[in-house]
Amino acid sequence: MLETDEPRLAGWERRAEWPLTVLAVVFLVAYAWEVLDNRSTPGLHVVLEVVLWAVWLVFAVDYGTRFVLAVDKRRFFVTHLFDLLAVLLPVVRQLRVLRLLTVLKVLNRRFSGKIRHQVGVYVAGVTTLVGLCASLAVLDAERAHPDATITTFGDAAWWTLTTISTVGYGDRYPVTWEGRLVAALLMIGGIALLGVITGTIASWLVERLSGVEGQVVEAEQATVAELRSLKAELAELRAELRAAKG
Amino acid sequence: MLETDEPRLAGWERRAEWPLTVLAVVFLVAYAWEVLDNRSTPGLHVVLEVVLWAVWLVFAVDYGTRFVLAVDKRRFFVTHLFDLLAVLLPVVRQLRVLRLLTVLKVLNRRFSGKIRHQVGVYVAGVTTLVGLCASLAVLDAERAHPDATITTFGDAAWWTLTTISTVGYGDRYPVTWEGRLVAALLMIGGIALLGVITGTIASWLVERLSGVEGQVVEAEQATVAELRSLKAELAELRAELRAAKG
Amino acid sequence: MLETDEPRLAGWERRAEWPLTVLAVVFLVAYAWEVLDNRSTPGLHVVLEVVLWAVWLVFAVDYGTRFVLAVDKRRFFVTHLFDLLAVLLPVVRQLRVLRLLTVLKVLNRRFSGKIRHQVGVYVAGVTTLVGLCASLAVLDAERAHPDATITTFGDAAWWTLTTISTVGYGDRYPVTWEGRLVAALLMIGGIALLGVITGTIASWLVERLSGVEGQVVEAEQATVAELRSLKAELAELRAELRAAKG
Amino acid sequence: MLETDEPRLAGWERRAEWPLTVLAVVFLVAYAWEVLDNRSTPGLHVVLEVVLWAVWLVFAVDYGTRFVLAVDKRRFFVTHLFDLLAVLLPVVRQLRVLRLLTVLKVLNRRFSGKIRHQVGVYVAGVTTLVGLCASLAVLDAERAHPDATITTFGDAAWWTLTTISTVGYGDRYPVTWEGRLVAALLMIGGIALLGVITGTIASWLVERLSGVEGQVVEAEQATVAELRSLKAELAELRAELRAAKG
Repeated sequence: MLETDEPRLAGWERRAEWPLTVLAVVFLVAYAWEVLDNRSTPGLHVVLEVVLWAVWLVFAVDYGTRFVLAVDKRRFFVTHLFDLLAVLLPVVRQLRVLRLLTVLKVLNRRFSGKIRHQVGVYVAGVTTLVGLCASLAVLDAERAHPDATITTFGDAAWWTLTTISTVGYGDRYPVTWEGRLVAALLMIGGIALLGVITGTIASWLVERLSGVEGQVVEAEQATVAELRSLKAELAELRAELRAAKG
Repeated sequence: MLETDEPRLAGWERRAEWPLTVLAVVFLVAYAWEVLDNRSTPGLHVVLEVVLWAVWLVFAVDYGTRFVLAVDKRRFFVTHLFDLLAVLLPVVRQLRVLRLLTVLKVLNRRFSGKIRHQVGVYVAGVTTLVGLCASLAVLDAERAHPDATITTFGDAAWWTLTTISTVGYGDRYPVTWEGRLVAALLMIGGIALLGVITGTIASWLVERLSGVEGQVVEAEQATVAELRSLKAELAELRAELRAAKG
Repeated sequence: MLETDEPRLAGWERRAEWPLTVLAVVFLVAYAWEVLDNRSTPGLHVVLEVVLWAVWLVFAVDYGTRFVLAVDKRRFFVTHLFDLLAVLLPVVRQLRVLRLLTVLKVLNRRFSGKIRHQVGVYVAGVTTLVGLCASLAVLDAERAHPDATITTFGDAAWWTLTTISTVGYGDRYPVTWEGRLVAALLMIGGIALLGVITGTIASWLVERLSGVEGQVVEAEQATVAELRSLKAELAELRAELRAAKG
Repeated sequence: MLETDEPRLAGWERRAEWPLTVLAVVFLVAYAWEVLDNRSTPGLHVVLEVVLWAVWLVFAVDYGTRFVLAVDKRRFFVTHLFDLLAVLLPVVRQLRVLRLLTVLKVLNRRFSGKIRHQVGVYVAGVTTLVGLCASLAVLDAERAHPDATITTFGDAAWWTLTTISTVGYGDRYPVTWEGRLVAALLMIGGIALLGVITGTIASWLVERLSGVEGQVVEAEQATVAELRSLKAELAELRAELRAAKG
C-alpha cells in the first residue's frame, strides 16, 4: 500500500508497529506459560487468560482502527481478509490456537524487512518460530484427549520436527481435530519450507554452474566498447574532412 | 486443437461447456451426499444412484458425439485416450471412483483459463478439489472393510492431508485395493503439487536473485541507442560531403 | 565412447543390442513367473532357474567380450565398473536380486534413445519398470521371513508405491536385509524421480514465466539488423566519394 | 579468509590440515569401535575413551590456537561460532555425539576442494559419511533405553536411510532425546540433500532444455564480428580519403 494513497492508515501502522510487536511477544510468553505450566494455580491461570484475551482485543481494535482509517474500504477489506479471519475465528473456543497466526504475522512484519536479504537466517528464524508455536498449539489441543500420543512438550517438539520435514514416522500424531488443524497448517509450512530451500539451492546452482550469463554480459560489454571506438574513429574522419575542406 | 481444423468439434465443445460444468457439479454433490449420508433411506439411495449413472451416461454420449464430429478420427482417438478410459473404466463396479476423473477434468477445463495466471489461487483450488474428491472416494472404498482404519469423513480428510503432503504418519491407510488406487492417484498428485510449488519458488528466486538478465537487457538497450547515434552521425557526415561537393 | 576410438567394441555393441534386449525381457518374465507362481511344480522351478542363470551367463560373457575387444582396457574397466559389479555381485545367492540391475540397464539403453525427448513418457516408463522390478524383488526377499509384512504381490506393489513417493505409511516395510537393500535402491530412485519431476516443472516455469530471454534474443536480432543497415550506408558513402573523386 | 589478511592463521591452518585429518579418521574409527563392539573388555573401553577425549582435546587446542593467531579476533569469533559450539557442547556427557560434527567438518574441508567439481561424487560421499556417523550416534544413544526400537547397527543404518530419504516408515524411531537430536540434524541434512539433488537436476535441465542462452551467445558473437568488419571498412574509407587529399 502506497503512503500517498492511504496517508492516515500508513501513519497508524507506523506508530502501531512497536506496541504490537511487544504485545505479540507478551502473548507468546503468556501462551507458552499457560500451556507448559499446566499445574499452575487457578489464580495464575486466570491472570494468563486475561492477558491472552486482552492482547487479542488489542489486535481486534487495531484491525477495526485500520478499517476506519482506510480511504478505499473495499480494497482494504479484500486485501486484509486474512487479518479479519485471524481476528474473528479465535472467538470460537476450539479455534483459539489460530490467535497465534496474528502473532506470527506481526512478528514477521517487524523483522522480515531487516533480515530478508539473508535468506538463510530468515528461513531458519521463521522455521524455529513456527515450529515453537505449532508445538505449543498441538500440546494444548491434544493433552486432554484420552487417546493422545502427544502429552509432553518434548513429544510435541519431536512431532513438529517429523512433520515439518515430511518424514512422518507416525509414533506421534494428533487425534483431536484442533490438533489436526495445527498439523494441516504445519504441513503447508513444511512444503513451502522445502520449496524455499530447494528453490534457493537450485537458483544458486543455476547461476553458479551455468556461467553462460556471465559470458553474455562480458560479450555485451565488448560490443559497447567496440561501438565507442567506432564512433571515435568516425568523429576523427569527420574532423579530417572538415580540415581538407577548409 | 485449432478451430479451423475441426470447426464442428470446436463448435460442439463450446456449446457443451456450460451444461457439462453444471452436470459435473451435480455429480459431485450427489456423490458426496451418497457417501456421507450412509444411513439414507433406500429410496433416496436409488435416486442418487440414478443421478450418478445419468451424468456418467451424458459424459459417455459427449465423448461419442465428439468422436463422430471429429474430422481426423485417428488423431482424436490418440489425443483423447484419457477421456475414453475415464468414461469406460467406471463401468466396472470396482472402478466407479474413476468417474470423478471426468468430473475433475471438466471443472479444470472450465476454470483454468480464468485463474491460471494467478498460479497461487489455481494451485490452492485444484488441491482443495482433488483432496475433497479423494477423501470421498477413499471413504466410499474403505468404509465397508472389516480392517479399515478410515471410517469417517474426518479420518478420510486427515488421511488425504497426510498423503498429499507426503508426510504419511501411517495412523490411517487404505486396505482395500480400490482405496489404494485412490491413494496412488493422490500420491502422483502430491508429487506434482510439490513439484509445482518448488518450481514456482525456484523460478521466482532465479529471476529475483540473479538480476543478471536485467543487466543483459539494459546492456542491449544501450547497444541499440549507441548504434542509432552512430547512424545519425554517419548521415550528417554524408550530408556535409554532399554540401562540400556541391 | 566414440566409434573411431573403439571400432570393434562399438561394432559388437551394435550387433549385441537386439539379442540382449530380448534376453532381458526373457529374464524379467522368468523372474516374475518364479516369484509370483510360488506353488509351481519343482520341474518348472528348475526350468526357470536354468533360464535365469543362462541369461546371467550371457550377460557375463557379453561383459567379458567387450573387455577383450576394448583397445583402451583401463578406461573400459573404469567406465564400466558398474557393469562389472552388476554381473559379479549376483553370484552371491543373497544378492541375486541385483541381476535385475543389468536387465534394467539393457532395457534403458535400448529405449532411452527413442523416447528421451518426450520427458514425461520416459519418466513414466522408467518409474513403472523400476517399480515392477522392486515389487518382485522385495516379495522374493521378504515372503519367507516369519515377521514379514509383505507376503503378496499386492502388498509389494503398495509398499513400492508408498516408498517411491516418500510417503512411507509404515503399514508394510521390509524386515530382511535383502528387502532393505531393494528399499535403499528404490529410495534413491524415488529421490531422483522427485528431483526430475520438480526440475522439469521448474525449468519449464523459468522459461515460461520469465520471458526475459525471448526479449534478449529479439534485442539481439534488432542489433544485428541495425548494424547491417549501418554497413550499407557506409558502403554508399564510399561509392559517392569515389564518384566525387573520379 | 584471505591469506594476506591473516597470514599467521592461514599458515597454521595449512600446516594443521594433514594432522587434523588423520586425527578425525582416528576418532571415527575409535568411536565406531566403541559403539559397535559393546562387549569389549573394560580395558579396551578405557583405551578407546582416552583416544576419543585426546582427539577432542587436540581439536579444542586447535580452536584456541587459531583464536590466538587471528589478528581480527572479533571477526574470527563471529565467523567461527559453529566451531566453538562443536568444541564446547560435547563437554556435556549427553551431547558427546556432537563431537562427530567437528570430525565431519575437518574431513569435509580436506576433501571438498578435490572433488567438489564432481557434484555427484561429492554428494554421494558426504551422504555416506553423514549416514554412517548418524547410524553410530543413534545406536550409541538408543541402545540402553528399555523402549528402544534401534538396538543393532543394522537397525540404525536402516533407520538412517528411511529418515534421510524422508520416507519415515516408523518401524524404527528414536525415543531418547539424544537420539532425537541426531534425528533432527539428520532431517536437516536430508532436506538439504533433497534440495541439492533437485537443484542440480533443475539447473541441468534449465541449461539443457532452454538452449536460448546458446542462441544469445551466438548472436553476440555475430554482432561483434559484424562490428569488426564495419570498423575495417571505415578504416579503408579513411585511407582512401587521405590518398585523395594527398
